[in-house]
Amino acid sequence: MSLNLITAEGLEPVSPLWLRERTQDPEQLDEVTTQRLFDSHAIDVNLELTAARPVDETHVEFTFSDGHCEVYDLTMLAHELQGITPFPKPESWDASIDQQAQRVDWEKMGNNEDFQKALKAYLRFGYIIVQNVPTDPERILEVAGHFGYVKDTNFGSYFEVYSRPTGNDLAYRSVALGPHTDNPYRDPVPGIQMLHCLVNETTGGLSTLVDSLNALKQLKAEMPEGYELLRTTPVGFRFLDAGTELTTRRCVIRENSDGEPIGVNYSPRLDHLPHMSLENTRRYHQARQRLGQLFQDPANEIRFQLESGELMMFDNTRVLHGRTAFDTNEGHRHLQGCYMDSDGPRERFATTLMRQRQQQAQQENREEMA
Amino acid sequence: MSLNLITAEGLEPVSPLWLRERTQDPEQLDEVTTQRLFDSHAIDVNLELTAARPVDETHVEFTFSDGHCEVYDLTMLAHELQGITPFPKPESWDASIDQQAQRVDWEKMGNNEDFQKALKAYLRFGYIIVQNVPTDPERILEVAGHFGYVKDTNFGSYFEVYSRPTGNDLAYRSVALGPHTDNPYRDPVPGIQMLHCLVNETTGGLSTLVDSLNALKQLKAEMPEGYELLRTTPVGFRFLDAGTELTTRRCVIRENSDGEPIGVNYSPRLDHLPHMSLENTRRYHQARQRLGQLFQDPANEIRFQLESGELMMFDNTRVLHGRTAFDTNEGHRHLQGCYMDSDGPRERFATTLMRQRQQQAQQENREEMA
Repeated sequence: MSLNLITAEGLEPVSPLWLRERTQDPEQLDEVTTQRLFDSHAIDVNLELTAARPVDETHVEFTFSDGHCEVYDLTMLAHELQGITPFPKPESWDASIDQQAQRVDWEKMGNNEDFQKALKAYLRFGYIIVQNVPTDPERILEVAGHFGYVKDTNFGSYFEVYSRPTGNDLAYRSVALGPHTDNPYRDPVPGIQMLHCLVNETTGGLSTLVDSLNALKQLKAEMPEGYELLRTTPVGFRFLDAGTELTTRRCVIRENSDGEPIGVNYSPRLDHLPHMSLENTRRYHQARQRLGQLFQDPANEIRFQLESGELMMFDNTRVLHGRTAFDTNEGHRHLQGCYMDSDGPRERFATTLMRQRQQQAQQENREEMA
Repeated sequence: MSLNLITAEGLEPVSPLWLRERTQDPEQLDEVTTQRLFDSHAIDVNLELTAARPVDETHVEFTFSDGHCEVYDLTMLAHELQGITPFPKPESWDASIDQQAQRVDWEKMGNNEDFQKALKAYLRFGYIIVQNVPTDPERILEVAGHFGYVKDTNFGSYFEVYSRPTGNDLAYRSVALGPHTDNPYRDPVPGIQMLHCLVNETTGGLSTLVDSLNALKQLKAEMPEGYELLRTTPVGFRFLDAGTELTTRRCVIRENSDGEPIGVNYSPRLDHLPHMSLENTRRYHQARQRLGQLFQDPANEIRFQLESGELMMFDNTRVLHGRTAFDTNEGHRHLQGCYMDSDGPRERFATTLMRQRQQQAQQENREEMA
């Protein structure tokens, strides 16, 4: 007896081990945590399915050779096998992205529907601009806490960005900064960055953003061998100041566990070419040079003035950020920045879905009562 | 003209691109940050070395085809090419580890030499026990801040571990917990965990620790195919409570960018077998079953009573932790825990080296003056 998945290629057997581990039986799961109460790793490796009895259109009762018998909801199993999740998938973008759709209002972020929409925009495109954020100091930490979890670094829980001639990073000068990811020398690399504009009296200092997923697609098509080197060869990144030295080695192209590109580690001032053959070094250098050009191509990049009271939140390794030069004589320019862990927005998104379901259930209850 | 590295296999050419990017020229580097002031990605891909002139035993002046000419300290280049770093390398351990050598005194952690020794023990073996930590609440955050950076999660900046029948995780019961890693469903997974014992009046609730690097070595020798599946097949991990749903997919065996194992994502109550062929599912299940046995093998595991005033700090994915069951009738058992990012201790270790060099320089200065 076997459970099968119907695919384009025909029947695909589903392992009884896979099925047994996915118990939906309330007696085998902790009520509060839904964590399994038994050690699924101890299941007999030769477990078999001995009987299957349809209960209704979406439920089947399965019996296993270890004696366990339970009714499964097939919809849940099918969703998992088909990789269906409620999370929005990343979509790559270029300069033609609808920038207005990425703007959200801080004053509405307490509303579940608006918050969900904002999170969806972030998860799909890797950045949003939050408007109407009061410009008092440390407000950024409140915004960060709403969207996820602040990540402390050697720069503190948040950092000030204004022109300081002796700052410990070039970000603290008035020079232009090409597109880059922050802190590629940290482990873990900050997943998300927020930049909150408190004051901007300069006409320069424009913010630039570019989607690495889009540039990587172009690079892969143009230089498959170079792409492969950037994907597989670890590079050294290094940060140094009076009290801190941080070095790490990681590949320029970041992938998820399925081998799909999810971003880059890219910082032309902090990276160090790996030692390879003369031929591969040239190929590697050429590929990263081209990648840098694609990142700065006006067809890929968006460029805007971040106004006082606006805060941008972006996936630090997916969406590269930069800044044009500015003239400190024109006036003050003061931003506050902070880092966050990657998974906050996904967690919050799941929470908005839960709240939505609860609200719908309450609504239905009320209608039934009426 | 070319620069060559002498290896066991003969001469290995070093790319002029590699050399040019490693400029040590003060005029090409920012004075404060030592970050490069030029964009090394823009260097001509056909750059050549046109002249080399020895200055002394360890210095050579190189001239490049782009006109740049500078004197390099060869020692620095050689160290990098040979992969020499000041950081201690991980060494796998089993039950015979010298547990006394892993114990450090909180009262001495202000001393640079003692702190360095503690960090070295942690970086080599993946855990230390800090003694004499005052048992007032939140003290754990001070200790964490000394060793690195606290990582906030859905459990807060720190969490309380005592018996709560309705806690949102099985860690908050009095049941035994097998060896596992925490929060494999988060992205990033917490790099380090601290557990601080405030009260322990029970005779049970012993802490267990096991080095995954040691178990992985055994698994690889016994079941190379199963090891390969655990290394390359992403598994689903899931956490759920009233307000949070977190799911992620990652491989059980974690590797660094050089493909060396550095730990595992292992939590038998939270993982979900991937859908694979019947044959691979069996092979996968068998390998994780065996891995679980190796983790619980007394020959691999250490087991001890964490006393009031003691704090254990361990690499969350390298050194698995567990706990024997305890009897709440015997008395109170209260721990506080927190997570930290991976790279804090490495950063602190680099800082102790810097401070050591400064102290030596001051000492030499004083001797010269005398």
